[in-house]
Amino acid sequence: MPRFFADENAVCGDIITVTGSDARHIGYSLRMKVGDMITFCREGMEYSCEISQMTADKVICQVIEVTPSDCEPTIILKLYQALPKGDKMELIIQKAAELGVGEIVPFVSSRCVSRPDEASAMKKLARWRKISLEAAKQSGRGKVPAVAPIVTFEEAIDGMSSDIKLICYENEGIRLSEAGIDGKKSVSVMIGSEGGFERAEVEKAKAKGITPIWLGKRILRCETCPIAVSAVIMNLSGNW
Amino acid sequence: MPRFFADENAVCGDIITVTGSDARHIGYSLRMKVGDMITFCREGMEYSCEISQMTADKVICQVIEVTPSDCEPTIILKLYQALPKGDKMELIIQKAAELGVGEIVPFVSSRCVSRPDEASAMKKLARWRKISLEAAKQSGRGKVPAVAPIVTFEEAIDGMSSDIKLICYENEGIRLSEAGIDGKKSVSVMIGSEGGFERAEVEKAKAKGITPIWLGKRILRCETCPIAVSAVIMNLSGNW
Repeated sequence: MPRFFADENAVCGDIITVTGSDARHIGYSLRMKVGDMITFCREGMEYSCEISQMTADKVICQVIEVTPSDCEPTIILKLYQALPKGDKMELIIQKAAELGVGEIVPFVSSRCVSRPDEASAMKKLARWRKISLEAAKQSGRGKVPAVAPIVTFEEAIDGMSSDIKLICYENEGIRLSEAGIDGKKSVSVMIGSEGGFERAEVEKAKAKGITPIWLGKRILRCETCPIAVSAVIMNLSGNW
Repeated sequence: MPRFFADENAVCGDIITVTGSDARHIGYSLRMKVGDMITFCREGMEYSCEISQMTADKVICQVIEVTPSDCEPTIILKLYQALPKGDKMELIIQKAAELGVGEIVPFVSSRCVSRPDEASAMKKLARWRKISLEAAKQSGRGKVPAVAPIVTFEEAIDGMSSDIKLICYENEGIRLSEAGIDGKKSVSVMIGSEGGFERAEVEKAKAKGITPIWLGKRILRCETCPIAVSAVIMNLSGNW
């Protein structure tokens, strides 16, 4: 059955209204008709629907059943990623979405080379959200991972509220396996840009109850680290 | 101390002879001199050396001490990767080298779209080996992951000899955590191209003692799977 993500304002009671490119995709590309069944996902819930009305640019669907998506991990993983150079953030967001990350929070730390102004940050954010949506569709997620607006390092550490809070650091820390991830409901993990973190930043994070994680002697490229860490956390939490 | 990889024929008794671009890099870029200390890595061993003689294009070094590299994982991970489309194999090899993979064996399966002729395969192999070397240097590996010439699916399953042999399959299998990786010396894992594997291929693999691994309900892109699997195997074997 074809699967789509429903926008926040698309769901009203037991009616889902689809407009724009999804509506055209349903009508023209998939050639679906009134009476056909279709699934919409929203925030980890799946809405099984029957198409009840169609025009050239609008599809109205009757919700038949709402069930929790069984494609979502049992753990909410929040990835705090310091802005890398170039377009590496795009690869990171795509892979994070595939691997089941719940939310991506981009932030700027001392060693970030990339420091976009407000206009450029808004443009990037729109692009990142599109990448997250596309990756969520392709990988069969039950929700689209949110991409938050860029924050400062201080805002990032102040805003963290997961059961387990981690920061990847090349100079010290426990192993991911020792972080007690199994059985927890939520994990936040901070990952640096190309230069990693300053010691002073790690100290500030520790003062906020964030535990340093050491990833061994081999040096991972900045974009490899979030992919590998997300995969391992999904494994340690029994989601992989 | 500067670190280089030594070619097979560079090591002769307790003398290491460097020529070509590495020799120029040592002399011109790093401005090293006779008497300076330098480290060479080869197949997981580290050679601490003193430079004993230098010309414009040759550096001769006296080996002082040979020790096992402490940057190599304790498990030998062989990644059997079906040829993906485009240049995705390059990303896979780069990330595999960073994550500690011991050898990459590219192979062609039923669903591979990429089927290079001999000339193109030789060109690709040379490029992949260069990528492996560069990634090994950057990540501080003690050996350069070998990249084998492209084999057929049958040659791949016949040639596998690790303690644990796995094939990633979207339709059935145990979890990676259930594969008994901890404490083993070597693991081989087969990963499909865009279309995954045919059931008949998985049956052939099973007949050779290769266990299917199921990676959950979210569908990973072809290039994400080897990166995520390598990271999780390094974690499960205590190397991360």
